[in-house]
Amino acid sequence: MSFAFDSFLSEPARARSAQPFTGLPPYHFVGGNIDEPTVPADALAEAVARVIREEGHAMGKYGMDGGPQGYLPLREEICTILERRTGITVTRDEVLVTSGSLQAMDLVNKALLDAGDVVLLEDANYMGAIAKLRTLGVSPHPIALDGDGMRMDALEEALETLAREGRKPKFIYTIPTIQNPTGTIMPEARRREMLALARKYDVPIFEDDCYADLVFSGERPPAIHALDDEDRVIYCGTFSKTIAPALRMGYLVAPWPLMGHILPLKTDAGTAALGQMALAEYLPGHYEAHVATLLPVLQEKSDTLCAALDEHFGAAAQYDRPVGGIYLWVTLPDSVDTDRLFEVALEQGIEINPGSQWTVNSDQNRHRMRLCFGHPPLPVIRDGIAKLAEICHAEFGLPLRSGNIARG
Amino acid sequence: MSFAFDSFLSEPARARSAQPFTGLPPYHFVGGNIDEPTVPADALAEAVARVIREEGHAMGKYGMDGGPQGYLPLREEICTILERRTGITVTRDEVLVTSGSLQAMDLVNKALLDAGDVVLLEDANYMGAIAKLRTLGVSPHPIALDGDGMRMDALEEALETLAREGRKPKFIYTIPTIQNPTGTIMPEARRREMLALARKYDVPIFEDDCYADLVFSGERPPAIHALDDEDRVIYCGTFSKTIAPALRMGYLVAPWPLMGHILPLKTDAGTAALGQMALAEYLPGHYEAHVATLLPVLQEKSDTLCAALDEHFGAAAQYDRPVGGIYLWVTLPDSVDTDRLFEVALEQGIEINPGSQWTVNSDQNRHRMRLCFGHPPLPVIRDGIAKLAEICHAEFGLPLRSGNIARG
Repeated sequence: MSFAFDSFLSEPARARSAQPFTGLPPYHFVGGNIDEPTVPADALAEAVARVIREEGHAMGKYGMDGGPQGYLPLREEICTILERRTGITVTRDEVLVTSGSLQAMDLVNKALLDAGDVVLLEDANYMGAIAKLRTLGVSPHPIALDGDGMRMDALEEALETLAREGRKPKFIYTIPTIQNPTGTIMPEARRREMLALARKYDVPIFEDDCYADLVFSGERPPAIHALDDEDRVIYCGTFSKTIAPALRMGYLVAPWPLMGHILPLKTDAGTAALGQMALAEYLPGHYEAHVATLLPVLQEKSDTLCAALDEHFGAAAQYDRPVGGIYLWVTLPDSVDTDRLFEVALEQGIEINPGSQWTVNSDQNRHRMRLCFGHPPLPVIRDGIAKLAEICHAEFGLPLRSGNIARG
Repeated sequence: MSFAFDSFLSEPARARSAQPFTGLPPYHFVGGNIDEPTVPADALAEAVARVIREEGHAMGKYGMDGGPQGYLPLREEICTILERRTGITVTRDEVLVTSGSLQAMDLVNKALLDAGDVVLLEDANYMGAIAKLRTLGVSPHPIALDGDGMRMDALEEALETLAREGRKPKFIYTIPTIQNPTGTIMPEARRREMLALARKYDVPIFEDDCYADLVFSGERPPAIHALDDEDRVIYCGTFSKTIAPALRMGYLVAPWPLMGHILPLKTDAGTAALGQMALAEYLPGHYEAHVATLLPVLQEKSDTLCAALDEHFGAAAQYDRPVGGIYLWVTLPDSVDTDRLFEVALEQGIEINPGSQWTVNSDQNRHRMRLCFGHPPLPVIRDGIAKLAEICHAEFGLPLRSGNIARG
């Protein structure tokens, strides 16, 4: 007899339940998983062994010698990387090492949001960001995007409308650099416009820069945080996309008056030491060169995905060629429902992200999908897209042509 | 001009703020920090380097090959250790690797508790457990203890009273093995009584076994979970006290129907890989021998603390000699207020845990304190207790004698 927990579950626990994990499907075009061969296993192994032999006894204390914000050498290295790559100048006291950027996001949400609050964010957005807000009882207020990211006219209109209603959003959440899922990069002028609007309407900005190191050209505008001289911008980043997601090593940058309120909300007694120590030892001599090796790998995967879409979907798949990152945002004809496509494709071992889950305005985006290309090897990308086109045709009669051949 | 976040903070964030970390005080008798020299740094370094070289590329996926519950070889090793040390027989599907047992506790609380709920727990208890419940708006309902842990007559009375009021506690939270802070071990017969009461009143049990591997004699009763044949018991454990707290490696054991509701609440996309891989590689050949080396170290620290208390506090400090763990629960004369003692001692570099924070019935325990002996070296324990006695005497006129000499 197994005890029935059902009547004991909390309200949030009743809302969802998971199935046992049975492995990834063979064609896995979702999630932030990365190209496995690029994980720098040997160099990480060497770095972590060296640093543990030298400093491992400090792990007898929860926060080692750095206290609750994380391992001091890693926090210092994060400051160095931020300054070099994003233009952000902060001290280690403004950096909190987190268990991935998701913990950073959870902490910012916990620190700033109560049920009933409003957050402004790009309409097409990271599914987790939208879901986390809704779980907290917060309204995600969508702002339209274009090829340069969040549109400032739409942002101003939303701020003005809310102001007239006497409501103030708790913050603007934005992914300005390789926006998720649209892949756009917001130009510097628009970043400055956003700061000016944030000042005019007196709201903070939460800048999520998790994919920013994966711009194929290696060139990116300064972070919004770097352009801010009022400590108005909270920032998060991660090593999940460049080193390895399973490390769970992200970071939050916040001015101390806010950081002091965030720390008591981090109830896990610190971020795991080995990952912190390994990165602190590995990054200084390796990070730039490592990222440089990733970019052509991802570019080739992106090109392969685009070629496969062109071949198998033809004009039925509209997209902007990625300039970085590991995902592609595809618009299919209106008659295709990607919620349904997701279901039938998954039955055949192909996983995609339906557009409804990656947008606040779900109903307007049921003909879109996100395809992640970081994890699958090139042949899997090619085969998977060919199969997806077949499945899509069987279900929706589209695309009409495959390669140069009309489908039956 | 620095942006003022104050009016943007959530209700929980407004409630507390932290100060910047400036290092541990010189005499640090608090917290779960452990004896630094015993951290097996070299063996861990070797283990982690080996496993990363062999399997590091799998870190390109968030959950490696094990999915969201954690690294498969570690989950299997946890099952092996549980069976050998606690009598618990479970499969790896019932094990979730967590970022320390605190995350396990947060997840159980999130899965089972809504504001307004009641949880039964030992009156003297882990400060974090009490604080976490209160933060959730849950009433911690204290149950009296004796030298064998939670008293079953008091538990039954509480269950009966609540039943008469039409209320059912969401669970019984208990630390049966080296209770925190009292250090007691609940005998097997009482564990069976608790299970019978839990069945009679139809409530789950949450067994926190975090210190259980530190019984000085090496002998302990079976876990309550091991005596349960109804899947009524949720269990958590950790490697923080035996390997190193900074690793942040704990685990939760729960039957699958509950586990399925817990997984969506773990919003950090997995527990950090390096610690999981390091432990999976290190534990099989080393854990038992390593724990055996810890016990005499902790026993000597415990003896040193007791001798120092006897010498400097004499009859003013009443306590039961620890049979394991890293803390001692001390009763001082009623006239001593340990909230005040905490403040004046901290000014002089000595940190203690005041009894009010380590009990639900705070007012009845202001003359008690918890002293942790795992972290400070032996001379620090001796000096610190001598100084604490001086401070206590200066503030409260007690203890009257130090060694065999009356104080002035």
